[in-house]
Amino acid sequence: MTERHPVTVVGLGAMGQEIARVLLEAGHPVTVWNRTPSRADDLVARGATRADTVANAVTSSPLVLVCVLDYAATRELLEPVAADLAGRTVVQLTTGTPRQARELAVWAAGHGIDYVDSGMMATPPMIGTETSVFLYSGDETAFQRYRPALDLLGASRWFGADAGLASLYDLALLAGMYTMSAGFLHGAAMVGTAGVSAAEFAESAGDWLRAVSGSLPYAAAFVDSGDYTTDVQSVDFNKAALDAIVQASVDQGVAPDLVAPIRELLARQQDEGHGKESYDRIIESIRPEVTRRA
Amino acid sequence: MTERHPVTVVGLGAMGQEIARVLLEAGHPVTVWNRTPSRADDLVARGATRADTVANAVTSSPLVLVCVLDYAATRELLEPVAADLAGRTVVQLTTGTPRQARELAVWAAGHGIDYVDSGMMATPPMIGTETSVFLYSGDETAFQRYRPALDLLGASRWFGADAGLASLYDLALLAGMYTMSAGFLHGAAMVGTAGVSAAEFAESAGDWLRAVSGSLPYAAAFVDSGDYTTDVQSVDFNKAALDAIVQASVDQGVAPDLVAPIRELLARQQDEGHGKESYDRIIESIRPEVTRRA
Ligand SMILES: NC(=O)c1ccc[n+]([C@@H]2O[C@H](COP(=O)([O-])OP(=O)(O)OC[C@H]3O[C@@H](n4cnc5c(N)ncnc54)[C@H](OP(=O)(O)O)[C@@H]3O)[C@@H](O)[C@H]2O)c1
Ligand SMILES: NC(=O)c1ccc[n+]([C@@H]2O[C@H](COP(=O)([O-])OP(=O)(O)OC[C@H]3O[C@@H](n4cnc5c(N)ncnc54)[C@H](OP(=O)(O)O)[C@@H]3O)[C@@H](O)[C@H]2O)c1
Repeated sequence: MTERHPVTVVGLGAMGQEIARVLLEAGHPVTVWNRTPSRADDLVARGATRADTVANAVTSSPLVLVCVLDYAATRELLEPVAADLAGRTVVQLTTGTPRQARELAVWAAGHGIDYVDSGMMATPPMIGTETSVFLYSGDETAFQRYRPALDLLGASRWFGADAGLASLYDLALLAGMYTMSAGFLHGAAMVGTAGVSAAEFAESAGDWLRAVSGSLPYAAAFVDSGDYTTDVQSVDFNKAALDAIVQASVDQGVAPDLVAPIRELLARQQDEGHGKESYDRIIESIRPEVTRRA
Repeated sequence: MTERHPVTVVGLGAMGQEIARVLLEAGHPVTVWNRTPSRADDLVARGATRADTVANAVTSSPLVLVCVLDYAATRELLEPVAADLAGRTVVQLTTGTPRQARELAVWAAGHGIDYVDSGMMATPPMIGTETSVFLYSGDETAFQRYRPALDLLGASRWFGADAGLASLYDLALLAGMYTMSAGFLHGAAMVGTAGVSAAEFAESAGDWLRAVSGSLPYAAAFVDSGDYTTDVQSVDFNKAALDAIVQASVDQGVAPDLVAPIRELLARQQDEGHGKESYDRIIESIRPEVTRRA
């Protein structure tokens, strides 16, 4: 095994523990710190070094990974040790918004700290496996320098110098996941009124959603071209389907909170005279004015 | 080829045309009727018989498939020929709500017509291929009698004697499809503000959604057991993620219409004291009172 550089992991929740474990197993000297010190016990038993203060933690390595609850907790921990961090690289793994990432990048730059932001597309058991994907943006030189270590956590994807990009992409993918799972729960509530189990519905819904996910590139083509001309999946046609879904939900006593907004966006496209164009045109009702098509 | 029974297809839109074609190709004598007669031309050239009235159409076969715009159009067409339909089987392929299906079943029973309702999980080019699934409910004897012909259209799934069940299941699956595609469009709007194309996003979103669709059975287990105890995907944790998604959307100028309702349901679960329980508990805020868990 080649010589591995030291890494510090600040925050040993479900994610931080797995991250520290994967780095240790690859042979990196790992220093850990957690607010509740006992969460480091298992890692120390595997060879990690426990730091008793955040300052001691961050001065043990040129690369500091932060994985705590949120950006407020990150600020609380890092601001008092800004001088200790100068000249080192902070990779912020904690989930937050693009704005929070950009603000932290500005703070870091003000203290001579190299800053990389990340979005983790993984759950704790996925860390270090081939299903894990980590998104990065910010200081590209620092990212490239430490990329071999970061690649251990999951497949790395680089987005650019704007520190907010990884978070933007992360939250966009999460938006898709949450709406899909919420839609599944809505459907399960509907068929549940006829005594169908959620487990039974999950099986056919899973097959169905995987099948229709194949049509996302077709939706993308409408969006990218701005030409919504179609003779199959019109706003009018799909508005009628959404009317039926909402009506059937209400008839069965299921609140339509999760499906009604789609119908409203379709109704808005109809009102604006786009009934014959593609369903995917609803994106024009939510995207910023500046990127909207007439 | 064994002797095939006659089939009548009423309604030759995008779906009806494909359905009639598949039946013809399998050797069934097919009689067709469409409000705009010219849409039958191609089928007649392939061997179908054109009926000049709905009455002549329905009396040509023991099995009548109806595939028009909606239930209102179906009623307009079938009510005047109720006496002609007595003793025959009507399979309603037209999309509608469970209530509309149940009402049409009652009307059919009152005229001695065997009634089967269907939900078609297919697009026109899928008809007759292995990716097509047709859901059925209503008169089981009639369904079994004509099942060989129906199996030509796609894999048949039987749901039970309540004529509304196929439609309920159909609309529940469609709810999942629409929320998934709407979530994709929301994510595309978010990354679009940073110049990422929808095509690029569709690729990673497709992979991501197919990966996370694997967790639907776990969500179902919470819902079916009514035990939402978890230490990984809590309401609190996911509420924070939805806060970030909504905030990031607003910061980027993307209207949060499609994601805000998920946040609202999570907030309601928090208010009711379920912050530490599983995310999937939001189903308890939308399902009917009678099936809700405390
Ligand atoms: N779990 C996932 O599947 C997943 C996936 C992608 C992204 N993420 C993100 O990754 C981050 C960590 O998630 P996780 O699952 O590891 O969370 P977790 O298990 O709840 O752990 C939270 C960590 O943050 C620490 N913390 C909280 N408030 C703090 C404060 N004020 N000062 C210092 N430390 C504080 C906790 O310390 P104590 O031990 O002392 O409480 C703990 O180490 C979050 O931003 C989360 O959104 C998680
Ligand atoms: N296309 C799909 O991907 C798909 C998938 C699943 C389910 N469905 C459902 O299948 C049904 C048919 O869809 P489609 O795609 O075939 O629709 P379509 O291409 O728009 O055709 C509509 C058909 O309904 C007829 N029609 C409309 N109003 C009528 C009236 N008042 N009286 C008599 N005929 C009338 C039309 O006749 P004219 O030719 O005279 O206009 C035409 O034959 C709909 O309920 C739809 O929701 C469609």
